[in-house]
Amino acid sequence: MRTSKSAGGRPRESRVDTAIAAAVTGVLAESGYAALTVDAVAARAGVSKATIYRRFATKQEMTFAVVLHDLDEAPPADTGTLEGDLGALIERIGEQLSRSGSDVMTGLLADIRADATLTERFTTTYLAVERSVIGELLDRAIARGDLTRRPDPAITQALLLGPLFAWIVVLDEDPARAPELARIVARMVSDALAAGVVPADPS
Amino acid sequence: MRTSKSAGGRPRESRVDTAIAAAVTGVLAESGYAALTVDAVAARAGVSKATIYRRFATKQEMTFAVVLHDLDEAPPADTGTLEGDLGALIERIGEQLSRSGSDVMTGLLADIRADATLTERFTTTYLAVERSVIGELLDRAIARGDLTRRPDPAITQALLLGPLFAWIVVLDEDPARAPELARIVARMVSDALAAGVVPADPS
Repeated sequence: MRTSKSAGGRPRESRVDTAIAAAVTGVLAESGYAALTVDAVAARAGVSKATIYRRFATKQEMTFAVVLHDLDEAPPADTGTLEGDLGALIERIGEQLSRSGSDVMTGLLADIRADATLTERFTTTYLAVERSVIGELLDRAIARGDLTRRPDPAITQALLLGPLFAWIVVLDEDPARAPELARIVARMVSDALAAGVVPADPS
Repeated sequence: MRTSKSAGGRPRESRVDTAIAAAVTGVLAESGYAALTVDAVAARAGVSKATIYRRFATKQEMTFAVVLHDLDEAPPADTGTLEGDLGALIERIGEQLSRSGSDVMTGLLADIRADATLTERFTTTYLAVERSVIGELLDRAIARGDLTRRPDPAITQALLLGPLFAWIVVLDEDPARAPELARIVARMVSDALAAGVVPADPS
């Protein structure tokens, strides 16, 4: 569980990193996850395959880094209410899922689950960061007096992330409605947390 | 959207069908989705590959039929409350997802999304059936007077399915806690529906 960031935030990207990221995004948008190869990305980015392999051991690592590391790790600005804070966070998650789409997210997730190293990295650099941000929003709500106790962060994460994930990745519904769904989820979950429907943090 | 079943319920399975289904489940449990091949299933079921290919065009179709067609299409018995009815449905969905696990669900979902025919079948025989069952539970609640209007079934499906899917498939959390999560979701969603947080059915 990572709770702090190195001073200065994310490392500055070089022009090559930017070109690789743009090429991955471009190939995915035009041809889908199955068509994403290191060859295709190298050609589109105007770099050699060796340049890519110096950065990423596999196609999956490259995709993971570009698609999921784009996550903004900072908690959203304090909106003054738990519902507002949760809404800002889920809307951001919904945007990220919508940008990738069902094909990329299902393909990438399958590759992650089939590889222990990527699973570990996914857990520590994506899911744990997201959970830590949720924890900060809950602590804000406690400090504000909106909540009287800290709810279980694992359950809270599933309640927040799940509906957006289902909408975009499983149900393949219209991403244009994701912001509306994010607002509904924020209202529903903040009501449930205030009503004590979610058990207390066991840790 | 299928809302009725043929008289007599699901077709009777032959011994061969049962042996194939048991072999698929066994291989998945022991070796995971990547190891699932028609060869491995044929050997374990004691049938020829031709026997399998007479039933399923591809490995993906076979897995889909065994893993997802196991869905009980009947709505759960009337518990007398919307919260109870939703809880019974989500607990069933959670059991099915837990039985398959993250590796199988992510692998299968990626294969489904990479194939237009399977995507169409997934939508019509799984997602639409689940949505239709949710619609029946909502109509029961309206008839009972628990709800005054019919909520959007797509949004409602995402709210119900999402947290369980996130818990088991994305977060890879303890499936033993899935029934607890199902009860929390049932309480949270029935409260939200009663409070009018979800917009009305646009259809």
